[in-house]
Amino acid sequence: VVKGWNKVKHVAVSAWEMGHSDPRKVIFSAKVGFALMLITLLIFLNEPFKDVSRYFVWAVLTVVVVFEFSIGATLSKGLNRAVGTLSAGGIALGMAKLSKLVGEWEEVAIIISIFLVGFCATYAKLYPTMKAYEYGIRVFMITYCLVTVSGYRTGDFIITATHRFVLIALGAAVSLGVNIFIFPIWAGEDLHALVAKNFIGVASSLEGVVNSYLNCIEYERVPSKILTYQASDDPVYSGYRSVVESTSKEDALLSFAVWEPPHGRYKMLRYPWKNYVKVSGALRHCAFMVMAMHGCILSEIQAPPEKRHVFRNELKKVCSEGAKVLREIGNKVKKMEKLGDEDILFDVQEAVEELQRKIDKKSFLLVNSESWEIGNRPSHEVEPQDLLNNDEETHFLEYKSLSEAMLDLRAVRVPKLWGENGAPEVKPAVPAAIVEENMFKKQISWQAQRSFQADAILSKAESKTYENASSLSVATFTTLLIEFVARLPYLVDSFEELGEVAKFKDPLKQQSQDLPSGF
Amino acid sequence: VVKGWNKVKHVAVSAWEMGHSDPRKVIFSAKVGFALMLITLLIFLNEPFKDVSRYFVWAVLTVVVVFEFSIGATLSKGLNRAVGTLSAGGIALGMAKLSKLVGEWEEVAIIISIFLVGFCATYAKLYPTMKAYEYGIRVFMITYCLVTVSGYRTGDFIITATHRFVLIALGAAVSLGVNIFIFPIWAGEDLHALVAKNFIGVASSLEGVVNSYLNCIEYERVPSKILTYQASDDPVYSGYRSVVESTSKEDALLSFAVWEPPHGRYKMLRYPWKNYVKVSGALRHCAFMVMAMHGCILSEIQAPPEKRHVFRNELKKVCSEGAKVLREIGNKVKKMEKLGDEDILFDVQEAVEELQRKIDKKSFLLVNSESWEIGNRPSHEVEPQDLLNNDEETHFLEYKSLSEAMLDLRAVRVPKLWGENGAPEVKPAVPAAIVEENMFKKQISWQAQRSFQADAILSKAESKTYENASSLSVATFTTLLIEFVARLPYLVDSFEELGEVAKFKDPLKQQSQDLPSGF
Repeated sequence: VVKGWNKVKHVAVSAWEMGHSDPRKVIFSAKVGFALMLITLLIFLNEPFKDVSRYFVWAVLTVVVVFEFSIGATLSKGLNRAVGTLSAGGIALGMAKLSKLVGEWEEVAIIISIFLVGFCATYAKLYPTMKAYEYGIRVFMITYCLVTVSGYRTGDFIITATHRFVLIALGAAVSLGVNIFIFPIWAGEDLHALVAKNFIGVASSLEGVVNSYLNCIEYERVPSKILTYQASDDPVYSGYRSVVESTSKEDALLSFAVWEPPHGRYKMLRYPWKNYVKVSGALRHCAFMVMAMHGCILSEIQAPPEKRHVFRNELKKVCSEGAKVLREIGNKVKKMEKLGDEDILFDVQEAVEELQRKIDKKSFLLVNSESWEIGNRPSHEVEPQDLLNNDEETHFLEYKSLSEAMLDLRAVRVPKLWGENGAPEVKPAVPAAIVEENMFKKQISWQAQRSFQADAILSKAESKTYENASSLSVATFTTLLIEFVARLPYLVDSFEELGEVAKFKDPLKQQSQDLPSGF
Repeated sequence: VVKGWNKVKHVAVSAWEMGHSDPRKVIFSAKVGFALMLITLLIFLNEPFKDVSRYFVWAVLTVVVVFEFSIGATLSKGLNRAVGTLSAGGIALGMAKLSKLVGEWEEVAIIISIFLVGFCATYAKLYPTMKAYEYGIRVFMITYCLVTVSGYRTGDFIITATHRFVLIALGAAVSLGVNIFIFPIWAGEDLHALVAKNFIGVASSLEGVVNSYLNCIEYERVPSKILTYQASDDPVYSGYRSVVESTSKEDALLSFAVWEPPHGRYKMLRYPWKNYVKVSGALRHCAFMVMAMHGCILSEIQAPPEKRHVFRNELKKVCSEGAKVLREIGNKVKKMEKLGDEDILFDVQEAVEELQRKIDKKSFLLVNSESWEIGNRPSHEVEPQDLLNNDEETHFLEYKSLSEAMLDLRAVRVPKLWGENGAPEVKPAVPAAIVEENMFKKQISWQAQRSFQADAILSKAESKTYENASSLSVATFTTLLIEFVARLPYLVDSFEELGEVAKFKDPLKQQSQDLPSGF
C-alpha cells in the first residue's frame, strides 16, 4: 500500500511539475474537456436535435480527433477532415448511381469499388508529398465505405451523408471556436520561441566547450550515451544536441504555422515562417562546428595544457565574442528587431584575426620540430597519455566486450595524469601576459619539454607520433573555432533576410521616430 | 487539356516508380483494400449479422485506423484501441451507476464527468512518456462519451458497449489476420535494413570527402541548402546527412519493432532491437567526424594543393581502410554474422600510424615558419585566396543582402584561382613516391613558396596569417580523420555487443561445424 501511495504521489508531483513549467498544457486540457462538454450539451440535451443524436458519434469523434494543441494543427486537421468527407460523399453518391445500373451485380460492384478505393487511397497515402494529407485520406476511406454500405441498406444516401456532414461540421465548429477564442495556442509562436532558444543553446555550448578545453576539463569516462549519440544530461552536449535534433520539431511546427491566420505580433498574410526554419538551419551549420570542437575534448588525443594556455586569451576572446553575437541575434529574433547600423561581426572577426596572428607567431608550438630539425633521434621523452595509444586501447575494449554485456560499463577511462601534474608546473612559466614577446619562446618550449621528461613512463617509437598529434590537436581546435566564426556571416545573412521579409522593427528608424515626437 | 494530360502522365509515372522501387507499397495497398472488402462482406452481406450492422461503422473505423504499414505498428495500435475501449467502457458503466444515485442531477453529473475525463485524459496525453499511448487515450475519450450518452438515452449501457466491442474486435481481427498472414511487412526488418544502409552511406561519404579534398575539388558556390542544413542532392553531403537525420526514423521503427513476435531471422523473444539503434548511434558518432571533414571542403580557408599532395597516399590509405571497415561491419550487420578472429581495425590503425609518422616528419609544412624563424619581415608573397579575406567577404555579403531578397543567389563564390594554376605547377615536384626521404624537404618547401610568389596579388599584413591558417587546415583535416578512426573502436564495440545479445552467427564456429560433417 505504501508503495502504491508513493507511486501515486510521484505521478501527482510530476503532473504538477509539468503544469507548472508549461501552464498552457493545463489550459489546453481544460479546453478539450470544455469542448466535449459543449458538444454533449448541444446535441444530446437539446430536444430539437433528438433525431440526429444517432449520429452523435461523429461530432464527438471530430472533436477528439481534430482538437490539437496548436491552432494551426487544428485548422489543418479540420480541413483534411472536411475535404475527405465531402469528396468521399460525392464519389460514393456517384458510385451508387452507377452500381444501380448493373442490376443484380450491384453487390459485386460495391465490393469491388471498396477494394479499389482502399487500394488507391492507401497507395496515394504512401507517396511522400501526400503525407501531410494522410488524415484526410483515412477519413475519405471511412466515409466512402459507410456511405456506400448504408446507402445500399437503406437506399438513402443523401440523408446519411448530410447528417454525417452536419454533425462533423458542428464538431469542427465547436473545436475551432473553443480552440481559437479561448486562450489560443499558436504553433507559430512555438516555432519562434524554439528558434530563439536554439541560439542560446549554441552560445552556451560554445562557451562551455572553449572553457573546458582551456581548463583542461576532461571526461573521466566519456558517457556511452554521447558515444552512441543518445540524449544525455551533459550541459555542453545537450546544448548543441537539442539544436541538431530540433529539425523534425521545426518542420512539424512549420507545417502547422503556415495554416494559422495573422495574429498577435505576426500581422501579415503568408507570414514567412519558412525563414525562421532557414535561420535555424544556418545556426545548425554553425552548431556542427561546436560539435566538432566538443569532439576535441572527447578525443583520446589531448593537447598538453601548456600549449593550450599559450592561446588562452585569444581563444577566450573569440569564444566570448562569438557567443555574444549568437546571443545578440537570438535576442533580436526574439524581439523581432533588425540589426543596428554597426557591423555585428566586427568584434568577433577582429578577435579571430588576433588569434590567427598569434598562431602565426607561435605555430612552432603546434608541431614537433625534433624529428625534422635534427633528424630522428631515439625518443626518451614520452607523454603519459601515450598509455592510451590507439592500438592498446582497442584490444582493451575488445577484451572486455567478450565478458560483459553492458555498454555502460565500458566507457573508456582516459587517464588524467597530465592534467594533474603537467598543468600546475607549467602555468606560472607561461603567464598569458608575456607570451607576446618572441624572446621567451625558446625558454617556454624548453620548459614544456622538461615537464614531459619528468613524466616519462613508456618509451615506444610510436609514442613520438602521438606527442605530435596531441600538439596538432590545438591547431585543430583553433581552426574549428575559426571556421565557426567563418560560418557566422551566413547566419547573419539569413537573419537579415528574415528581418526583411518578416518586416522586423528597425531600431534606427524607431529612434528617429521617437526623437521628433520628443520635441 | 494537354497540360492536364501531362500532369496525369507525370502522376502515373511517379506512382509507377514508387511501386517499382518498393513493391511492398503496392502489396500493402492491396492488403488494405482486401481487408476493407472482407469486413464489408462479413458484416453487411451476411444475413445473421443484420441487427448489428448499425454498428458497422466501428468495424470500418478500426480497420482503417489500425491497419498500419508494419506488423508492429498494427499490433501496438490494435492493443491501444482495445485497452482504450475496454477501460472506457468499464469506467462509463461505473459512472452511470453513480450518476443514477444523484437522482435529478444526473445530467449535470454526466456533463461534469465528461469534462473531467476530457481534462485528465488530455493532460495525461501531453506527458512525454505517454506519447506512445496517445491513440489509446483518444479512443478512451470517444468511447467514454459515447457509452455514457447513449446509455443515458436508452438506459442500455451493456448492449451498446458489447456491440461496439464485438465489432471493434472483428475489425481488429480482420486487420491483424490480413496484415500478418498475407505478405507480412515487419518494422524490425526495416530497422535492420536502415542500420545496414547507414554504414554504406557513411563509408561512401568518407571516400567522397577525402577524394574531393585530395583532388582539390571545391564548391564553386556552396549550395545554400548545405549552409542552412536542408536536404540536398550533393552525394557526399546526403550520405552523412541521412545518417544524422535517421534518429527519429529509427526511434519510430524501434517502437514498432518491439511489438513484433519472433519471425524470420529474428527468432528470439524480446529480440534486442535496441542494440541496432545503439550501433547506429555509434556510427553517427563517427559520421560527425566525416561531417567536420566535409566542413574543411566547404570552408573559405583552403589548404594549398601542394601541401595536400604531400600526405596524399597516407590519407588515401586511411580513408580506404576506414571505408572498408565500415562496409565490412555494415555487411556483417546485414548478414547477421559476428566478426572473425582477426582484428578488423588492425589495417586502419596501421594506416593511421603511418599517417602520423608522416606528419611527424613533415610537420614543418603545416606551419609557416617565416614569422618565427627569421622574425617579421614584410610579406610580398600572398596567396590568391586571400582575396577572400574574412572581413571583406562579410562586407560583401552584407552589401548584397540589402539589395536582394533571395538567399539562393547569395551563396559565396570561392575563387578557384589556386586550384587552376597552383596544382599543376607543383604536382610533378612532389611525386608521392619520394616524399619519404628527408633531403628533399627543403627543396619542396621552396617550390611551394615560389608558387605563392608567382600569384602575388594582394599585399596586406594580415594576408600572411591566412596563409598560415590555410596550411594549418591540412592539419585539421588530418586530425579529424585520425579522430574518426579513433572513434571506430566504439563502433566495433557496440557491434560486438549487438552480435552477442542478438546471437549472430559465428563464422568460425560455422566453419568448424561444416568440417566434421564433410568427413
